[in-house]
Amino acid sequence: MRIFDKKMDALKKLSWEEFYKTPMKKKLNYFENNGRMFDCLFAQQFTPENLARLFEVANKIRKIAKSKEGLDWLQTLLSHKRAMLYFVQPSTRTFVSFQSACYILGMQVSEIRSTSTSSELKGESPEDTIRTFSSYADMIIMRHFEEGMAEKAAWMLNRTKRPISIINGGSGKDQHPTQALLDMYTLHLSFLDKGGINNKTIVMVGDLLRGRTVRSLTYLLKHYKGVKIIYVSPEYLKIGNDIKDFLKKHKMPYKESGDLDKELKEADAVYMTRIQDEYDINGESKNIDFSKFHLTKKHLRFMKKHAIIMHPLPRRQEIEIEVDDDPRAKYWRQERNGMWIRTALIAYITCIEDKILNI
Amino acid sequence: MRIFDKKMDALKKLSWEEFYKTPMKKKLNYFENNGRMFDCLFAQQFTPENLARLFEVANKIRKIAKSKEGLDWLQTLLSHKRAMLYFVQPSTRTFVSFQSACYILGMQVSEIRSTSTSSELKGESPEDTIRTFSSYADMIIMRHFEEGMAEKAAWMLNRTKRPISIINGGSGKDQHPTQALLDMYTLHLSFLDKGGINNKTIVMVGDLLRGRTVRSLTYLLKHYKGVKIIYVSPEYLKIGNDIKDFLKKHKMPYKESGDLDKELKEADAVYMTRIQDEYDINGESKNIDFSKFHLTKKHLRFMKKHAIIMHPLPRRQEIEIEVDDDPRAKYWRQERNGMWIRTALIAYITCIEDKILNI
Amino acid sequence: MRIFDKKMDALKKLSWEEFYKTPMKKKLNYFENNGRMFDCLFAQQFTPENLARLFEVANKIRKIAKSKEGLDWLQTLLSHKRAMLYFVQPSTRTFVSFQSACYILGMQVSEIRSTSTSSELKGESPEDTIRTFSSYADMIIMRHFEEGMAEKAAWMLNRTKRPISIINGGSGKDQHPTQALLDMYTLHLSFLDKGGINNKTIVMVGDLLRGRTVRSLTYLLKHYKGVKIIYVSPEYLKIGNDIKDFLKKHKMPYKESGDLDKELKEADAVYMTRIQDEYDINGESKNIDFSKFHLTKKHLRFMKKHAIIMHPLPRRQEIEIEVDDDPRAKYWRQERNGMWIRTALIAYITCIEDKILNI
Repeated sequence: MRIFDKKMDALKKLSWEEFYKTPMKKKLNYFENNGRMFDCLFAQQFTPENLARLFEVANKIRKIAKSKEGLDWLQTLLSHKRAMLYFVQPSTRTFVSFQSACYILGMQVSEIRSTSTSSELKGESPEDTIRTFSSYADMIIMRHFEEGMAEKAAWMLNRTKRPISIINGGSGKDQHPTQALLDMYTLHLSFLDKGGINNKTIVMVGDLLRGRTVRSLTYLLKHYKGVKIIYVSPEYLKIGNDIKDFLKKHKMPYKESGDLDKELKEADAVYMTRIQDEYDINGESKNIDFSKFHLTKKHLRFMKKHAIIMHPLPRRQEIEIEVDDDPRAKYWRQERNGMWIRTALIAYITCIEDKILNI
Repeated sequence: MRIFDKKMDALKKLSWEEFYKTPMKKKLNYFENNGRMFDCLFAQQFTPENLARLFEVANKIRKIAKSKEGLDWLQTLLSHKRAMLYFVQPSTRTFVSFQSACYILGMQVSEIRSTSTSSELKGESPEDTIRTFSSYADMIIMRHFEEGMAEKAAWMLNRTKRPISIINGGSGKDQHPTQALLDMYTLHLSFLDKGGINNKTIVMVGDLLRGRTVRSLTYLLKHYKGVKIIYVSPEYLKIGNDIKDFLKKHKMPYKESGDLDKELKEADAVYMTRIQDEYDINGESKNIDFSKFHLTKKHLRFMKKHAIIMHPLPRRQEIEIEVDDDPRAKYWRQERNGMWIRTALIAYITCIEDKILNI
Repeated sequence: MRIFDKKMDALKKLSWEEFYKTPMKKKLNYFENNGRMFDCLFAQQFTPENLARLFEVANKIRKIAKSKEGLDWLQTLLSHKRAMLYFVQPSTRTFVSFQSACYILGMQVSEIRSTSTSSELKGESPEDTIRTFSSYADMIIMRHFEEGMAEKAAWMLNRTKRPISIINGGSGKDQHPTQALLDMYTLHLSFLDKGGINNKTIVMVGDLLRGRTVRSLTYLLKHYKGVKIIYVSPEYLKIGNDIKDFLKKHKMPYKESGDLDKELKEADAVYMTRIQDEYDINGESKNIDFSKFHLTKKHLRFMKKHAIIMHPLPRRQEIEIEVDDDPRAKYWRQERNGMWIRTALIAYITCIEDKILNI
């Protein structure tokens, strides 16, 4: 099935370290098959074209899933496939939503949730563990604490005679492409009758330094015209230079600010994020006053009527619970969108999306 | 589908703390939909009518399940539904029997067995965790270490636009309604050809102070006439005043005793329980001589010929292993009854029980 | 269904301790039903006849599984059955490959991966835990840290009115029969066009004292003619006297050696194993120079052209990663063979293998 022998040759000559350093653009096609995404590893793999396709498939799946007959039919599509969910970093929503996505398409699912029940305890390398999964499963969906591990897994399997697709469910503080995907899908759905994502003002709030969602979302917003991003954060947690370079290179208008109250008034979408203090080195987050970066009921009064509030969740105090009842609060719907768009992604990667669109 | 807008209004006005203190009778209908149980949270929700219905459905399911064709058919009934098993307190039998019940009806199942793999680690509240499950699943079956947590989950979800059913698989030392249900089903089956549960003498033995099964069973026995309960326990672990008040209020004859040998002779059913020393505060259980409250082979001689022996399990030394071979020992069957009656409960809550009864 | 009343009588008279000491030959038929394997506990249960049958079934399953239609059909065979995977010792490949085997035949699967989520925490005996599983499931596949536990489970359940099959997925350092089975299947497939396993030279390398695979494989090789085994290990980790007695008794030619380089030249199959230092008592493995027992790229030059390299996995440094690319490296295929032969074993035990062979 897989047709990239020539690429394979080039690939085999590079060691992992060499491959890893290869510029993103150049290595992307190693994770494709016949010009279509084979592994889903980076937010950078999403293009206006495949995003449009994925949104269309997700919409259709949601429609089909409204009836028992529809759901039963969807389950016949991948009833012959088995997915491995290898999640050795704590996760609730990414895990359960991917598992549900597999179930919706009828896949059988195995799960490893901790290295303490696996053979890594006996000294096995993560690479061997992953290759082992490829002996039993047809797809691996993984979250790993090590940066680049999903990419390494895909690189390694693509060099074997039995490559299977890898979907990255989060690797270290690096990439979490399907979070970016579900964020884009939520923006897409929310602005459907408001002229689309073009020309909107997105306010991103919180730990902009270490939150991978902010990074991925910025990458994807370059595909839309006239989008303005306002980054609101404590001084210490401002966006990194890599993002600034990206914004400048793609001529994307942006602003940095420390004043949530002021910026909220302009927002078409507010994207709240959690302080990622698990990445603190010396507990530095403890000295920051985060209360200025919390969205509370009082903010709702001066936000635009059609603005939307998003959050990748889990939340702590960033959003007051009372905000949940406001119709502009979209984070719970955003979560559910995640399940549908992940279902669409699996359908796309396994090349069954035509069947879904044509029914 | 859910029709209780007016109730919703009243509900929304109460804070959780206020709601929680509302008398049981008054709050029960908040967990109903169209006059039928929507969430299963308390033993008090079981009435003679719905118990009779559930027993009938369970009997029919067992009958259908005798053939491969029957089992395959049952699995078509909820093949479009996904259940979340959220069990963050150790449990073997409740967990596996609920999971099997889901499987019997064809539901797909996700499981979270420990807060260490979930986002609660990142500071998420249990309420947000549960609301998250409701984004992906159609039903939550949960066991939580916190008293009242299942009720809180149901209360919270019923205030959202996407309420899904909660089944309480045990919350703290509070409630474990489906244990009570399977106990009643076992009594029902065992006394089917002996005039039913009416007029029987039930001897409950062990840790009557802290065992939630004893409390729930007492509640449900009020629905039967002439039932006499004999509570046998060490002085320190006698039934609480709340149960005594209940017994008096409903004019249910009962007796307290410390003499197992004597009371056993009268028993139609002996309900043995384990010492719940996980709830000890200062290791007080260690000073009690429990051997007088253990059922041994020698007791079998002077028990009634048709008496039955029950135990919610797990057991330690309360029942000698040799007793297992006696035909009066029903605890293993009781366990299996639990799977069938839980299947019936899920069928009832999802309104498919008519399909089962009419086939 | 189970017809061994007379055996049951004899069985019931023996205590577990007495039964356990009974000679292997004598007790094997207690784990049979109608002359067919009912529980799979020991490598000694495999005979030339049932091995041939199992290989045939596995081959057929692999062939059927090549198409979606085939895989969907296989899943109808045991869609009415539920398996319990009780794996309380760390395991990746045995666990996932058994789970996949269940999925291939359509079984629904429950899993317990740790005693910390089960009722053993509350003081339940492993026997009661296992009997509990038998209330809900139709088959138990188990790995336990306690030697003999799978046998004890099968012994105990066979004395009840609801015996279900036990498959041993590894018990302590004792037995791991399905590993032996998949090893034999790999040898069988690899030597199919080279005259079969007869007359081949098998070199086993590494921790021969404590590796259970080496023991089981030796037992099974007695069924083949002219097989010569060369055991290569550090002095301290040579095969035990029980194996030597077995080899002598069955007049199987063998040799012990400490020189890997030399013996490799003769090998038709090299079976590499990991140092089982989890069984060290005083960290004695640390003082041994294992590098002499590692297979590296340089060895490939002087190995026979058609030799095969096997490993039960996980590996540490026993086999250099560069060896993976050599066509003689069969350990990844061996792993996948494990899934197929385990599927065949389940089909055999549940008596559906005729359906598979006759389609």
